[in-house]
Amino acid sequence: MNYKFSERLSTFSSSAVREILKLTQKKSIISFAGGLPAEEHFPVAAIGEAFERVVKEGNKAFQYGLTEGFLPLRESICRWMVHKGVTVTPDDMLITTGSQQAIDLLTRIYIDKGDVILVERPTYLSALQVFRSYGATLVSVETDRDGMVLEDLEAKLKQYRPKLAYVIPTFSNPTGNAWSLERRLGTIKLCREHDTLILEDDPYGELKFGDATVKYPSLFSLDQHPNGSCVVYTSTFSKTVAPGLRTGWVMGDPEIIRNMARAKQAADLQSSTLDQQTLYQLMTHFDLDGHIEFVRKEYEKRMRQMAQLLKGQNWPGVNWAEPKGGMFFWVELPEGVNTSDLLKTAVDLGVAFVPGVSFYAEESKFNTMRLNFTHNDAEATITGMERLSKAMDTVLVK
Amino acid sequence: MNYKFSERLSTFSSSAVREILKLTQKKSIISFAGGLPAEEHFPVAAIGEAFERVVKEGNKAFQYGLTEGFLPLRESICRWMVHKGVTVTPDDMLITTGSQQAIDLLTRIYIDKGDVILVERPTYLSALQVFRSYGATLVSVETDRDGMVLEDLEAKLKQYRPKLAYVIPTFSNPTGNAWSLERRLGTIKLCREHDTLILEDDPYGELKFGDATVKYPSLFSLDQHPNGSCVVYTSTFSKTVAPGLRTGWVMGDPEIIRNMARAKQAADLQSSTLDQQTLYQLMTHFDLDGHIEFVRKEYEKRMRQMAQLLKGQNWPGVNWAEPKGGMFFWVELPEGVNTSDLLKTAVDLGVAFVPGVSFYAEESKFNTMRLNFTHNDAEATITGMERLSKAMDTVLVK
Repeated sequence: MNYKFSERLSTFSSSAVREILKLTQKKSIISFAGGLPAEEHFPVAAIGEAFERVVKEGNKAFQYGLTEGFLPLRESICRWMVHKGVTVTPDDMLITTGSQQAIDLLTRIYIDKGDVILVERPTYLSALQVFRSYGATLVSVETDRDGMVLEDLEAKLKQYRPKLAYVIPTFSNPTGNAWSLERRLGTIKLCREHDTLILEDDPYGELKFGDATVKYPSLFSLDQHPNGSCVVYTSTFSKTVAPGLRTGWVMGDPEIIRNMARAKQAADLQSSTLDQQTLYQLMTHFDLDGHIEFVRKEYEKRMRQMAQLLKGQNWPGVNWAEPKGGMFFWVELPEGVNTSDLLKTAVDLGVAFVPGVSFYAEESKFNTMRLNFTHNDAEATITGMERLSKAMDTVLVK
Repeated sequence: MNYKFSERLSTFSSSAVREILKLTQKKSIISFAGGLPAEEHFPVAAIGEAFERVVKEGNKAFQYGLTEGFLPLRESICRWMVHKGVTVTPDDMLITTGSQQAIDLLTRIYIDKGDVILVERPTYLSALQVFRSYGATLVSVETDRDGMVLEDLEAKLKQYRPKLAYVIPTFSNPTGNAWSLERRLGTIKLCREHDTLILEDDPYGELKFGDATVKYPSLFSLDQHPNGSCVVYTSTFSKTVAPGLRTGWVMGDPEIIRNMARAKQAADLQSSTLDQQTLYQLMTHFDLDGHIEFVRKEYEKRMRQMAQLLKGQNWPGVNWAEPKGGMFFWVELPEGVNTSDLLKTAVDLGVAFVPGVSFYAEESKFNTMRLNFTHNDAEATITGMERLSKAMDTVLVK
């Protein structure tokens, strides 16, 4: 039997993160690699109670449901989004199997082979993987600590006439940066002028560190919405409740949402009814905002610990900045160091990270790495940093 | 803002079934439309106990997991498949968000625009939707009560050199037919000779009626497997446990499975960890086979009741046959009757079915309909058939 795979298959590179995740499940290494939340802070007792309520609701809770998602959950999310300056109805949203699926579905209904998508430099690697699988041409926009550089964005909008711009303006994966208000407003204005749709990926928006009075309003909230919005917004419960419930959502103009629902019918008919019902009960009977605040504080502590440890290293020629939120430190090593090679040494020494190369759409910087600070406790973080330090010694000239 | 949707979008017709499902959630009509299992028979207490065990396993159960699926669940499914004559390891399988996702992922890695896919006539409408969305050219093979007609299959293999053949050999959706052993073996032989991969969709295999000694071995079990198999096999817990846990699986040559896993990373990273862990606990501590036998008997009762009611109608020029298993009756009305028009009348009278038109890849028969017999209890079925009878009176010449 000769298998005849599609041309498309060659575009699916296996994600470095997922491959490493496999590795770390097997070996007793300390991983700063995966974007894993701290499982000891999952509200498991509350999830258990929520599930009991689902069972009491009766057997219908385990039946097939609507492709668009369980209506009471969509209503709860709509109410919850009001505190983020977003006013939508359940018809303007779709429940997805994690926000990863929202990226896939929007690409499916919006992008043909050869269409251009603008992305940040660097950006989320699994989004790049999706875009490539649909044959999109990826163009990076210069990105600094405040977001996409507007002059470069405008030049690339004019040059490439992209259909879509994919951004993570609030606590970027991988950099932890947050866009300034000026860049947010400027990006919306420019993209609207050029009829370029923005996909705003916001998994980390709730995990803000530092000055509580500083706000980072979503692009979706800043633009007219939902009707005629030039922004499609996606978020998830994976970082605020638990990834195992595999539930995200996407909001936007109802025409876009309807079309994404049609694509979702083909993709998987619907997301898990059980997860959706459980999350609905959790949102109704549990202090989710209180829990998020608790997790946020814990992650800020872990971030500060890792910042302290990084500072202590005094690695020559190594640059990093304190993330404003989210889950990651982004570290730039001296030119010439290849962090993919370094990873092998690191894993031998019992520690893992993600080499930065996968986060670039083009002209990858081989001397970068992403470090997760949310998953390990204080002790493991100290040990992991000691091991990483040994690995770094093999490539840094002191 | 002018939205610029992909060309692909025009291929996503909204599924008639899903639209009707929406309708029936709103109105108090009796629905023979959706392929819904009987929710009163879901093993909800056992699912509840399984979930409690998951919670006891600790917080890690709610963390991100492997794209390939929760290993203990894959191991359990492998052991369970032995009674179906299938011997595979967890590396030869992937957990999916329902078997619908298996259809989508295989198409994604195997089919380019213009590639030909052979299908039965008629066949599962949501598979047609997936194939069309990837730009496949669909060709129907003549199909009778015993399966694909081998002469027509051979002619079409030669004429179209298809990459894939999609089949539901055991209790077809929509017809309830089961292929004979001769057709099963003949199809494998012919497809192997022409290097055409077979996607065997088997959601209903456990729901067999009539003579218990008659066996319908899966194509996958009849072919060499998993290495070098010309069959990729998919099934689901939706019909044997509950659809709300949204978990299916796919088995095949490990190269195909690895490639499907790469596509799944992009599509949704992984399926619900909670659902997978719950199903693992259920398979370990619950008599799943006993439960399946109970459900099978219940469905056979319901099938016989509906057969009795259909017989009693004596509708002139209307043909149907008793299904050998599964969930559906397939009814052919006199030429010239359009069941899509009839559906409007039927819904006004308080009953729904699926017009057959959507189950054809080409040259649709407009005078067909699919009736589900598993979802309604005896009383609702009687009332629904009375209503359907009134609707039929408007189109049948007595």
